[in-house]
Amino acid sequence: MRRPKIPEAAIKRLPVYLRVLEEMQEQEVPIVSSAELAERTGFSPEQIRKDLAYFGAFGTRGVGYDTALLRRRISRILGLHQGVKAALVGAGHLGYALARYSLSKHKDVQIAAIFDVDPLKVGTRIGDVVVRSVSELEQVVRQEGVKIGIVAVPASEAQRTVDALVSAGVEAILNFAPAKLKVPEGVFLQNIDLTIELQSLAYYTSASQVEEDEVRVEQP
Amino acid sequence: MRRPKIPEAAIKRLPVYLRVLEEMQEQEVPIVSSAELAERTGFSPEQIRKDLAYFGAFGTRGVGYDTALLRRRISRILGLHQGVKAALVGAGHLGYALARYSLSKHKDVQIAAIFDVDPLKVGTRIGDVVVRSVSELEQVVRQEGVKIGIVAVPASEAQRTVDALVSAGVEAILNFAPAKLKVPEGVFLQNIDLTIELQSLAYYTSASQVEEDEVRVEQP
Repeated sequence: MRRPKIPEAAIKRLPVYLRVLEEMQEQEVPIVSSAELAERTGFSPEQIRKDLAYFGAFGTRGVGYDTALLRRRISRILGLHQGVKAALVGAGHLGYALARYSLSKHKDVQIAAIFDVDPLKVGTRIGDVVVRSVSELEQVVRQEGVKIGIVAVPASEAQRTVDALVSAGVEAILNFAPAKLKVPEGVFLQNIDLTIELQSLAYYTSASQVEEDEVRVEQP
Repeated sequence: MRRPKIPEAAIKRLPVYLRVLEEMQEQEVPIVSSAELAERTGFSPEQIRKDLAYFGAFGTRGVGYDTALLRRRISRILGLHQGVKAALVGAGHLGYALARYSLSKHKDVQIAAIFDVDPLKVGTRIGDVVVRSVSELEQVVRQEGVKIGIVAVPASEAQRTVDALVSAGVEAILNFAPAKLKVPEGVFLQNIDLTIELQSLAYYTSASQVEEDEVRVEQP
């Protein structure tokens, strides 16, 4: 795949633009300026123009972007125009919440399969999707053409799960297990570690102690 | 509070350093080089030296950092040395997963209170913590000295929840509701939007279409 080097932070902003553009299209706003996008997303107009220019989307100076065209463009860049299939592994509370949320909210990333090891869960449904045994993972993922894997299993099972997903053809993985995982080159791995999120949040409270006169950490 | 301007990305790396330093202390490694930290965290040695220097932590050239001192330093920077209390609002599947996970895994950010609107949930326990009615939120948060709020309520309830947390003295908020929320200056808001995570993941799959010869989005 040829593609420009785009910072991850810019990719993360694309779905936000998409959401705003969908709203504006529903409100039948035909043209949108970077200033309006800034107002609705909270990003700066400069940031927005820079992000969109990565993908060859240039507004007309003093006019703006064609709402429908820009929406379609971003949708294709993200690969959402034709829908992308995802598989969820791990139907515990977190997995259940993710599945329920994803199944109800958006069709462009579709949870096409759910797997768990627990025989009591196998055969039950979350929304319209039947939970299957992990033993069927590789076959189903390959058959369904699943491209995204969501890992919500315990840390001890995470690497094994990732290996199975990758071997079945998954190209991008969203991992919630608190484990340092290895993927082969060409597979994208995004970790969401809730411990890290919570711990780093504490920095922004008055509990944080950054004193200028603190002793330097040095070897004697 | 006086504090240096530190990029958010650097703050997010601190808990990772902390985890590695804890491991190394358990393994009784007295001194750690930036190369070893790089090996164990996956970040580059240059990145690590730069991050730690923000906080006045300088290793000795060719030797490294004192493991115990550096761990203590990072713990204080993050405000975790004395423990930080968090309150969770919303005990649905996501909230339940967050609470169970946080309650079992780490003591430095402690979930001190859980709230829900559902009378069937109020009075039940998650781990050792009793779920209380949202009507008690402000009083309990103030009483307990809670500094962090975790929002796992539906989008329609999110702003009201955040307002109540802020008014009770919460200083940093981790929000899982897919809503654009307002907080007053001085309160830190971190959003984790699972739709955005999933949608941006699709960019890294073969579904993404970034063609160089694609038509530019322009006004005629």
